[in-house]
Formats: sequence, C-alpha cells, structure tokens
Amino acid sequence: MTTNRTASTAQRTGVWFVGARGSVATTAVAGCAAVTAGLHPATGMVTETPPFAGTGLPPLSSLVFGGHDTASCPLPKRAEALTAAGVLPHGLPSALHAELAAADAEIRPGGPHPGDTRADDEIISAFAADITAFAQRTGVARTVVVNVSSTEAAPDPDDPRLPVSSLYAAAAVRAGCGYVNFTPSTGLRTPALTAAAAVAGLPHAGRDGKTGQTLLRSVLAPMFVQRALTVRAWSGTNLLGGGDGAALADPAAAAAKNAGKERVLADTLGAAPEGEVHIDDVPALGDWKTAWDHIAFDGFLGSRMILQTIWQGCDSALAAPLVLDLARLVARAHETGLTGPLPELGFYFKDPDGGPAALAEQFTELLSFADRLKETA
Amino acid sequence: MTTNRTASTAQRTGVWFVGARGSVATTAVAGCAAVTAGLHPATGMVTETPPFAGTGLPPLSSLVFGGHDTASCPLPKRAEALTAAGVLPHGLPSALHAELAAADAEIRPGGPHPGDTRADDEIISAFAADITAFAQRTGVARTVVVNVSSTEAAPDPDDPRLPVSSLYAAAAVRAGCGYVNFTPSTGLRTPALTAAAAVAGLPHAGRDGKTGQTLLRSVLAPMFVQRALTVRAWSGTNLLGGGDGAALADPAAAAAKNAGKERVLADTLGAAPEGEVHIDDVPALGDWKTAWDHIAFDGFLGSRMILQTIWQGCDSALAAPLVLDLARLVARAHETGLTGPLPELGFYFKDPDGGPAALAEQFTELLSFADRLKETA
Amino acid sequence: MTTNRTASTAQRTGVWFVGARGSVATTAVAGCAAVTAGLHPATGMVTETPPFAGTGLPPLSSLVFGGHDTASCPLPKRAEALTAAGVLPHGLPSALHAELAAADAEIRPGGPHPGDTRADDEIISAFAADITAFAQRTGVARTVVVNVSSTEAAPDPDDPRLPVSSLYAAAAVRAGCGYVNFTPSTGLRTPALTAAAAVAGLPHAGRDGKTGQTLLRSVLAPMFVQRALTVRAWSGTNLLGGGDGAALADPAAAAAKNAGKERVLADTLGAAPEGEVHIDDVPALGDWKTAWDHIAFDGFLGSRMILQTIWQGCDSALAAPLVLDLARLVARAHETGLTGPLPELGFYFKDPDGGPAALAEQFTELLSFADRLKETA
Amino acid sequence: MTTNRTASTAQRTGVWFVGARGSVATTAVAGCAAVTAGLHPATGMVTETPPFAGTGLPPLSSLVFGGHDTASCPLPKRAEALTAAGVLPHGLPSALHAELAAADAEIRPGGPHPGDTRADDEIISAFAADITAFAQRTGVARTVVVNVSSTEAAPDPDDPRLPVSSLYAAAAVRAGCGYVNFTPSTGLRTPALTAAAAVAGLPHAGRDGKTGQTLLRSVLAPMFVQRALTVRAWSGTNLLGGGDGAALADPAAAAAKNAGKERVLADTLGAAPEGEVHIDDVPALGDWKTAWDHIAFDGFLGSRMILQTIWQGCDSALAAPLVLDLARLVARAHETGLTGPLPELGFYFKDPDGGPAALAEQFTELLSFADRLKETA
Repeated sequence: MTTNRTASTAQRTGVWFVGARGSVATTAVAGCAAVTAGLHPATGMVTETPPFAGTGLPPLSSLVFGGHDTASCPLPKRAEALTAAGVLPHGLPSALHAELAAADAEIRPGGPHPGDTRADDEIISAFAADITAFAQRTGVARTVVVNVSSTEAAPDPDDPRLPVSSLYAAAAVRAGCGYVNFTPSTGLRTPALTAAAAVAGLPHAGRDGKTGQTLLRSVLAPMFVQRALTVRAWSGTNLLGGGDGAALADPAAAAAKNAGKERVLADTLGAAPEGEVHIDDVPALGDWKTAWDHIAFDGFLGSRMILQTIWQGCDSALAAPLVLDLARLVARAHETGLTGPLPELGFYFKDPDGGPAALAEQFTELLSFADRLKETA
Repeated sequence: MTTNRTASTAQRTGVWFVGARGSVATTAVAGCAAVTAGLHPATGMVTETPPFAGTGLPPLSSLVFGGHDTASCPLPKRAEALTAAGVLPHGLPSALHAELAAADAEIRPGGPHPGDTRADDEIISAFAADITAFAQRTGVARTVVVNVSSTEAAPDPDDPRLPVSSLYAAAAVRAGCGYVNFTPSTGLRTPALTAAAAVAGLPHAGRDGKTGQTLLRSVLAPMFVQRALTVRAWSGTNLLGGGDGAALADPAAAAAKNAGKERVLADTLGAAPEGEVHIDDVPALGDWKTAWDHIAFDGFLGSRMILQTIWQGCDSALAAPLVLDLARLVARAHETGLTGPLPELGFYFKDPDGGPAALAEQFTELLSFADRLKETA
Repeated sequence: MTTNRTASTAQRTGVWFVGARGSVATTAVAGCAAVTAGLHPATGMVTETPPFAGTGLPPLSSLVFGGHDTASCPLPKRAEALTAAGVLPHGLPSALHAELAAADAEIRPGGPHPGDTRADDEIISAFAADITAFAQRTGVARTVVVNVSSTEAAPDPDDPRLPVSSLYAAAAVRAGCGYVNFTPSTGLRTPALTAAAAVAGLPHAGRDGKTGQTLLRSVLAPMFVQRALTVRAWSGTNLLGGGDGAALADPAAAAAKNAGKERVLADTLGAAPEGEVHIDDVPALGDWKTAWDHIAFDGFLGSRMILQTIWQGCDSALAAPLVLDLARLVARAHETGLTGPLPELGFYFKDPDGGPAALAEQFTELLSFADRLKETA
Repeated sequence: MTTNRTASTAQRTGVWFVGARGSVATTAVAGCAAVTAGLHPATGMVTETPPFAGTGLPPLSSLVFGGHDTASCPLPKRAEALTAAGVLPHGLPSALHAELAAADAEIRPGGPHPGDTRADDEIISAFAADITAFAQRTGVARTVVVNVSSTEAAPDPDDPRLPVSSLYAAAAVRAGCGYVNFTPSTGLRTPALTAAAAVAGLPHAGRDGKTGQTLLRSVLAPMFVQRALTVRAWSGTNLLGGGDGAALADPAAAAAKNAGKERVLADTLGAAPEGEVHIDDVPALGDWKTAWDHIAFDGFLGSRMILQTIWQGCDSALAAPLVLDLARLVARAHETGLTGPLPELGFYFKDPDGGPAALAEQFTELLSFADRLKETA
C-alpha cells in the first residue's frame, strides 16, 4: 500500500456525488474515512496498490464530500441502515459519525421535482451554483462530480428535454469540474455536452461501473477468444434488492443497464452470442447481488461444453472503492491538464469511452496511465 | 483461419505420441484429419487463428502420426469407443478410417513392462530406435515427441531409476526430437535431461496442459489481483471418469496433478490461499469432466463475497487441439534453431518453464513468439 | 420391472397425440418400441415399477399410435433429427423404422390453419372423425387423446372462439376418448368441456407435465415447510432451445407456463414468495434444458441462507415416459369406468386437478390409485 | 404458532449439553431465550408449528440449561464471538446476558483430560453426579442429555475403552435421563448401553443431526426413485470452517460423518451410487457451510442428465432449533413413559434408529408421534 492515503499538503479535493444519500455514496464516504483512520485496509481500491505510488493522486484524507440527492435521510442514519443490511461493519457508523455528519451537511436537494417548471438551463445553473458554493465553502482545489444515482430510463429520442443525469453533468461542466458517470444513464454522453466539456478543458470518464457480472465477462470472454473456442450462447440472470433492484425493475432502466452488459461480449467475441440478461428485483436480498451466467460453447470437433458462474457480492462494497479510485484519478487528470474522455479508465466501466474490452488490456492501459501521471508528479 | 492447414511443400513433420492410443492422442489424430478434410472447423486450435498466418508452422496436412503405447486396441476401434462416449462425432471414425489406421500402423509397444530387467539406457535406446525408424520410414523432416500418457505418480526422490516418462523424454533427446510434456509427469524435468536437451540443441515445452479448471483460474486469479480484492479461500472439486479419472484416483498421481493446479494461484496471488483440490474418479461421467470452484474473497470494509464456477467439458476435446498446436510450434521452433525450454508457450501449461502466470500475459507472449517465427519464415 | 410391458391379450389401446410430430410424441413412440423390443430399460416410466404390477394397465406392446399435427416431416426423419440432437440414441431410428413409419401413417393434418373459416363445431367434428377412423382402422379397444403440442398463449377471456387446444379436447370427448393434457394450454379446462366429459363418462387428467424445475420445486418446497424454514424468495431461469424454447419465447405462452410453475410454490408455502421465473429461448441448447433456481430462506434467529439448484435435462426424454404412463393410466381408468378428472394423477402435473402439491404425497396418492386398479383387475 | 412456548405450569425441564460451550449449544441457549422473550420468531423449530399444539411438550420458557465442556470460555463471550461471525444477530448477546450467564453457571468441566488415569466407570459416575446435582439444584422434573460436541474419530474396535461420547451417554443413563445424540459419535450406540437404557426405561434418539446436505439428499433421492430415474453417481463437497471444520479435517472424524451421509443414499436408492463426499476445513468460511452436490442420472433411453445443488447455510443456526425440538420431544416421551430408541424421530437424523429414509415419510412418522403425544396429554 502506498502513502497516497495520507495528505502530504494542505490541498484538498472535492467529491460531489449525484445521489449522495444512496448506498454507493454512503459506503464511499464511510469507507474513505475508515481507511484514512486505519480501521480497515483499502481492499478493492486499485489506486492504493503499489503501481500507484508516486502518481500524485489526492490522498484519501484530502477528500471532502458533498452532493445532491432528492432523499432526505441523513447519512449517519443511512449508514446505520447499511450496517443492518450487512453492507457496512457493525460499529462503523458510530465510529465515523463526525465524518458522515460533515458530508451530510454538504448535501443539497436534487431535482427537478415533478411539476418543476424551470427550464433546463435554470436547473443546471442552480445545480452548478450548489457545487461552486461547496467548493468555495470548503476551499477545495478542485471538485469531481460523480454520478452514483439510480439508473434512469433510456431516454426517448423525441423528448426535447435533457435527461436528469445530463442536467447534473451540464452543471459539472458549468462549475468547471471533472465528471465521472458510474451509472448507465446518459450523463455527459450527448454530443453537445461532450463538446462543452472539451471546450471547458475538463476531463471525464464513464460509463456504468463494472462491478460484478460484467467484470467477470470481461475476463472470461477473452479467454474463449484466446483459446479459439466458439461461444454459442451467453445467458445471465441478476437477482438484487435494495434501491438498485427496485430501479432496475423498470424495464426501461434495465434496458439501459443491459446495453452495457452486452457490449463487452459483442466487443470481445466479435458478435453478440445468443442469450438474454435478466435483472430481477428481489427485495429479500437487500444490497447483495447474485449473478448467474451460463455460457454454452463449442470445442474441438463440435463438442458442446458449458461454463457457469455464480457471483454473490455486495454491489455497494464493490462500487465504493472504484468510485473513490475514479474521483482521485479524474481529479489528478484535471490537475495535470488532461481534458476530454479518458479511455485509459475503461478498466472501470461496462461501456467505456473507447479502448480495449478485455480487462487484462484495460488494466495495462490503466498502469500506463499511472506511469504518465508519475511523470508529471 | 489461415492457410497453414494446407501443406504448401512436400516437407512433412512427425508427431510421436507417448500414449498414442489414449483419448487425447486418438482425438488429435482424428481431429487433424477431420480439419484437414474440411469436415470440421479448427475450433480450439489457436495456431489456426489469424495471428499465426505466415508463421511457417507445418500445415496440419503435413503431420504424420505415430507413437508408443502399452495398450493394443487399434486406433479405429478407440475412435469408435470415443464416439460412443460422446467425445467424437458420430460417423467420424468411419469417415477417417484410413488416417486412423495409418497412424495405428506407426504405433510401437511402450514399456517397460513389469519385470522388465533391461537397464534404463537400454530401454531409452530401444525407444529412440523406434522413433528414428518412424522418421526414416515416413521421411519426415523432423519429429516432435509429445507425452499424452496417463499421469504417473510423483517420483520417489530415493528411487535411483528414472520415471517412465523420463525414459521417453530421454529417447526423444537421443533421437534428436523436440519434446512436449502435456502431462504432470516428470518427463524432461530433471537437471540431467534438461542439460542433455540443451547440448543437443533441441527445443521443448511443458508441463501439464491447461485445459479446464486451471485455465479458468489463470484468468480469474489475475482479476482479483487487478481489482485489489483479497482471496481468502479457493476450493475445487473435479469429477471425471475415463482413463484419466481412474489414473488420478491414485493419490500419488493426484498429488502430482494438484501441484500444477495450485501453482497458478500461488504465482498469481502471491501466496496460496486456503482451500483444497479434489479429483474424484466417477466412471459414470466418462471423458466428461465437471470442475466446481468456490472462491471466498473479501471486498471493501471486510465484506465477504463468493464466486463459484462450474466447468463441464470434455477433456480430450479440450486437450487435442492444444496438443496439435504445441507439436506444430515446437517443430517450427526446432526448424528455426530455437533450443531449450520455450517459456513463450506458458499459455498452454499449468506448470510452465517460467514466464507469467496470468493467461492474458501468456497470450501476449505467445503472440510475440508468433511474430518472431514470422521473421524467420 | 413388471410384465405389463408384454401384451397378454389381443386387446389393443390407441394413443392419439395432438402434436404427433413433436419431440415428445416422437420420443414416446420410439421409446415405447425400444422398451418393447428390449433395446432399453424402462427408465423414467413409473408404471413399469413393481407397485404397478397387476394393475391391468395396457401393455406397452399393445399401444397403437396416431395423432394430429400441422407439421409434415415424417416421424422417421424427426427421429433422425432427435438423434442428431442427442435426444435419441444413435442407431435407434433405423432399428425402429417400421414402428415409426407405422405411427406416421396414422398422423392426420392438424388445424385450424390461418384463414380457416370453419366454425369451431365443424373443426371439432373433423378432428373427432379422424380419431374415430383411427380407432376403427386399428381395431383398438379404446383411445386416449394426449395433448403434447406447443404451449399456446393464455386465452383472451373476451375471445368468443375456443382455444385450439380446446378444439382437440372437445374432439376427444366427441369421439368418446379419455384425455390427457401434458401442456399448460387450456384443453379440457373450460366449464363446458369438463361438464361434457362428465356427461360422456370419460376420464381425463392434466395439466402441464412436471418434468424438471417444477418437479424439483415440488420436493424442495415441502422440505422448507416441514422444517419450519421461511422461504423469502424463489427465483428461476430456464434456458432451452428446440421447438419448446421458440414457443415459450412468446410472452403469452410463457405466462401460461409460469402460472403452473408458481402454483406449486403458492400451494405448498401458503403464499407465493418473492421472485420471478424466466424462460429463455436459447437455440444453441436444442432440446436440452437448463434450469437454475435460487431460493433465499431464513433460518433460526433470522439467519439468511441460500439454496441453488441447477437442472440439466432433456425435456423430451423426461416427458415421454410420463406421457406413456399417463396414456396407460387413463386408458385403464376408462376401462374400469372411472370418469371425470383424476386428481390421483397430480404426481405428473404442475397444475393438477386438485390433490396435494407435494410430490411425496402425490406419489402416495398414485400408489393408492394403483391399488384401486388392482382390485378391479 | 402454538402456545407451547409459554410455561403453563411450574414444572421445569433440564437440558444438559455435552459440548455446552460449542456453537450449537450456545445458539440453542440464546435462541430459546430469544424466542421466549418474543425477540425472534421460532423459525426452524418444528415443535412450534401447529401440528404440535396440544402435545404437552415442555414450553421453551420451562427449559433450564447446563452441561459439560472441556472449554472454559464463558457463554456470553462465546455468544459475542458467534455474533461477530454472523451466526447470532447483533445485540442479542447483550440482550440475553442474564440467560447466557445462568446457563454458563451450570456448565461443568468435561473430560477425560489427557493423562486421566480414572477407570471408565469412575468417569461415568463423576459425570452422572454432575447431572444429578444440576437436577437437584434447579429442581427440574427431568433432564435430557444432548450430545452436541465435536465429532470424534470412528472408534477402533480393538480398543477396550469406551469412546468419550459413550462415557457421557452412560452417565445419562446412570443419572436417569433421556438422551439425544446429535453427532455421528458412538454415544449410546453400543449393545451394552442400549440395553442399559432399555432396562432403565429411558427414551433416546440419534444419530447425527440432518441439517444441510443430507437433509437435501433425503428429499432428492426419493424423487429419483419415485420417478424411476436411475442415479449413476452422487458426489459432494462440503466447505466449512469453525470448530466443526477443524474437527472434520481429521480423516477419522470425517469418515464417521460420511458414513451417515452415505446411508441415506444407500437406503433410498437401494445401493450406494458412485461418488465420494469431501469435507474441507476452510477457516475463512467460519460457521457458514457450503455444500455442493453433483448427481448424474439416466433418463429415458439412456439420456444422461445432471442435477447440481449448492447449499449455503449456517450450521449452528440449522442445528440449534432441531436440538431444542429433540430435547422437548425426548423429555415429553420420558414423561409419558416411552422407552428405548425413538425411530419416530428419524426426521432429525442422518443415521436414525430405524424407520424410513425419505424425509416426507419421516415427517409423517413425526406427525403420528405428535398425535400419540396428544392422546396422553
């Protein structure tokens, strides 16, 4: 483990969560504090492994959290709920009450609410003003906006209004912030917004964090290709409860999610194989996700073989360290003057801004990126 | 697919199987003929994929098969049995009767039989004479000896005699042949034999073909490392029948096999995690193998997660195309003057002669090797 | 094994399949002939086990097959296709060509075809005439009509026309035949048709053969109840190709199928737990079905536990022996004067005509039924 | 739920655990108190379901706990450890501190210690004196001795001394107590001890609680038989940590355990199928057990099918409610004058004292037993 974790200078970095009271943001805030306090190792944080020593990433102790959310349950209470659900360890919320309360004090109401009559531009300005006020109040050197809110439905191409996720992304650009989209929602992925980020000289990364089933697919699909085995069908079912399960019970949101899941197979295998992906809302499972994959493939002389995988993980615990990684990497990219999409961060995403689809190659790209950061450190 | 498959010159290459009447050798002989005849695609043969075009590998149609075996069942009959077992497609043995019979005519009795009083050197010479006679009779430019016989027990360090697999390996060296050890047996892995191969200027590759559970482990273990997730326990059970199942029901043979399986985890994860590996002989499964793996890992803040994999494959159908790959690659290495161990072929082995442990890196090495062969082609 | 299999008298029994060229019917015809000829044991046929000795069931050798189908591919050719798909053993279709051809000669075109302008009653009469002509031509003592055709969409309650499956069921009644509905389609399950069967004094059994996932559920769900463990969620995914996979890719047909699957849980557990059931068409799997079930249950003091099952079976091979069982049992019930629904056959169905939901209790009922048949034998 | 749970009279019943500081006993003591206090439902306790209302079982609130153990860690501390391991809910040990401390005060040192030179009879007397003193001190009407200690190695038939588990069983008989053996150890299963229990007029039940893999086998194996499907191989692997994992890492102890596991298959299927059972000590899993079963079976016409099950449960949470059930049932049997082995309790055991092997039939027997108890209530 490196010493990035300890702040070596007075400079601080803001992390502004869209969905700041969700499970992922709550786990990220609690986890950052827990690792900083030495209560837990930095398991799952790639930026705390040796290759990232000397890259000049903002230390964990320098991160200051805030964000938007439409929910009002305070973070310390959310953390207690996550403890009851088995996501956070017992005792952690009380041990970190100060840090959770501090972050909670920097959360502003999200929107727009149903019936909101403001024009998009007005809403964007209000969001940007919240972010700018946070930066001034906390004195951070720069802020990264990270979308960890619930997946929104795939946008209707005939709807003239921007999707909500894009209102927040536009606010990030307007406030001069780097941007990370950890969800499958649109965010900055519109020609106009991507162009605006480029003009503003802002780095950004997305889309849709790769935490479980797709992570596995991004290492297994290349294996079949490298071994010249023919994948005939790849089927999958995800069971999950929690807020994510409920959000993805909406077929339109599930469709947005599945597009990313299927991209890795099509990109790696050359064409999408047979098979569907289901996402079932199973409230009894809470924040724990089970993903079953069934892969039918052909071997030599047409022999029919099967691989099945069963992944049982806690989505928030898988996502939170990656979210912290990304906030640090994009903040550092911003500091070094990198702008536009960062395909070198494809390691983290189901639907990346270019780059290879296989995890091993994405990891190589990420290490090269770390090396480049070292040169400017 | 490349055109390597069609012989472009009159030059032919010998492939001498130790265990020539086993399932793997029978499938390799039948499969080579089937692909050459255009009856089946070259699924599972990496050397038939585009990166290997122009590498000067001996075409499949140029391969001439022979070998040693202690069993006497003729290859066409073995092929019929494999068809009944679902390994080879129906109709194939009769369609390829001529090719199977031709290979069968080049199989010589293996040994030593119980009670054989000959000294090791005498046995080696007899084996070498068989190989040399084969080469002269068939007029091949060179021959690669490939060990695909049953796993032998891990050798007793106090036993002064060479393991049988090493007698065959020594014969390969004496006959001036490249050598491939697709099994966990000792083969050329003794200091004296490795030195002899170096002196004789012969290339060789081994050990223990990576066809199923270990193949998976070599892609999954790096994923945990790259994502900074802590593997706590990795347990596995293999169920298989056929000759391999019976051979591995011997605990000493199973121990030899498991050493290779565990090496990939220790090499990749830094230390061997908790967990055992079982190999059960289940005659009802015939040549089909089921491997269940259970991986307990820790995520962020100590969250406990599980990945399970179930692999159902036909071992002979997985092994045969790799065996053909290796025979061609070592023959070509021999032709180009490469000598000694070929760590670039670690992609194929559980217990390779050095090189990286992760499949993705091994594949990169293999592609570099292909590029080097192209330069000399 | 009993001696029911050998015809002890000259009396013969007709089995008229609706869907006579489908996989299930083809496997049933081929399997009946194979067992009669002593080529295969009667694996999967409950009526050939010792408790059924002396029940007076029509011997397998006495069964005469015919049926309706809209497809025209002859049975011997269908059997060859099933052999290529791994459902029937190699060599069987040629060994049984005569029996398959004989059954094929008794297959009549099904209907109605699109654009058919005949009234329902006209169609019913035509079907009934086909069945009656078959009985006269073959001289069978009685005939059982067995629906093994593709699942039809759940009927629209506002549609005044009978579903096609009910046209066939009505024809069975009109022709004076016992009736078995092995599919989830409506068949005889309308008040009018059930009443008609009662008036005609005909026995019938249904609905929806229990061959895989639901079979498992009917033994596992009672276990949770008996052990006072609380099932919180029961989720399932089915992957299958073949005709059944394609038919069930229609959401309306899948809905009809799933209703039966869920009934066993609701009936056994007292209320339907959380969880969905998916049926995916995966053509690569052919007639082989994989069903994954994930059961989340609570133990003592709220401990959360999981059971998962993976069932890999061949649906036609599972269904065919049960279809032969049912044809024999209903024929014998008819002979002994039993009329109306036979809840004692709930052992065979997902959505039975009453009786217990747990397999063990259903088996006890079936054995009592066998005892009753013995008394009249 | 019945009202058995509330003590309706002043009469109290003793439960004396051999292994009183183990996970199962600790969970049973804590769970009994938690259910009595209304903190948790009686999930997993069959005796709290409606069929047991009116059977006169001692109410949960009337149970008084004590026992022997060689360990010295106090029960409240053991309960805290089980909470950290995820077996007991957070907060429960502190809420139930009084009840845990009360039971702890009634625990006496077990034995014999290594080097103990006392004769068997002397040890038995000392144990019996402990139990008698407990009964007098607490004023219980009667006491049931329940063996929940670690599995001991299968006894050497040439060893003249009694296994330790039998010393405790003999003490139970000498102290006039009913006896339950929830482990695979010998306990009362010697001709002399069984005879002594009969002479003393004491009821007893055993052996080896059926909590997970074998429970599943006892419902699945009958399914194959009832459906006339031929099981060819049944293989299993168990992964578990905790004390039980460590104890079963001893091959002799594992052999004792596996004998029971295999009995249910042999009894149900008529003969033991191919396949092995492994029990691996995986400390990382703590008290959570994963059991994978792989069942290869033949269907109609020799089709090869597979069922796999994965059971993830907490052994202590599965065992504890059954242990409470058994203590109550044997106490009530004692009260009503029943003596000798109670095959009606085979529902609870892998290796029962006779009776059917299928869970459904065992449940029927248990319900009949409940009815008999009602008659005398």
